[in-house]
Amino acid sequence: MGRAAARASEIEVRIELKPGVIDAEAESVEKSLGLLGIAPVPHVSTARVFVLRFPGVSGRDARRLAEEAVERLLANPVIHRVHVRPLGRA
Amino acid sequence: MGRAAARASEIEVRIELKPGVIDAEAESVEKSLGLLGIAPVPHVSTARVFVLRFPGVSGRDARRLAEEAVERLLANPVIHRVHVRPLGRA
Repeated sequence: MGRAAARASEIEVRIELKPGVIDAEAESVEKSLGLLGIAPVPHVSTARVFVLRFPGVSGRDARRLAEEAVERLLANPVIHRVHVRPLGRA
Repeated sequence: MGRAAARASEIEVRIELKPGVIDAEAESVEKSLGLLGIAPVPHVSTARVFVLRFPGVSGRDARRLAEEAVERLLANPVIHRVHVRPLGRA
């Protein structure tokens, strides 16, 4: 196994709600910030991030595997908008 | 109110678990990816992102308010590592 193959490729998957989908957690945060007296209360939106670290996998293969993970497990295309971004090799 | 004040400042707050704190959601994702046959199974870590959009607030004040929101509501310093990052003005 070459040196390159022993390293790991990292992919960041960021999952947001599509515009128009109610972000209940964000609404709850806005309400709480108002109750705490933070003024002006900001508009809040949320996202979930998964960092996938693939050992011994090329950047290209890692991206493909991450996209498969998004499609089959991490995101629901009806309500989610997804950004997949390589973080490089470590 | 000047033109600058009518704009909004956006701050991104990214909340991760500190090293050593068990990331149950990440473990669940790893297990599921294995069951789905994705190979090699990546090491997974998760983060929660809040984007706070403050209307009519300077970048500096927005950052201060975001840090207050982190301290009083969004994060638990015992288990969380927090990154606060200005996204600029929109």
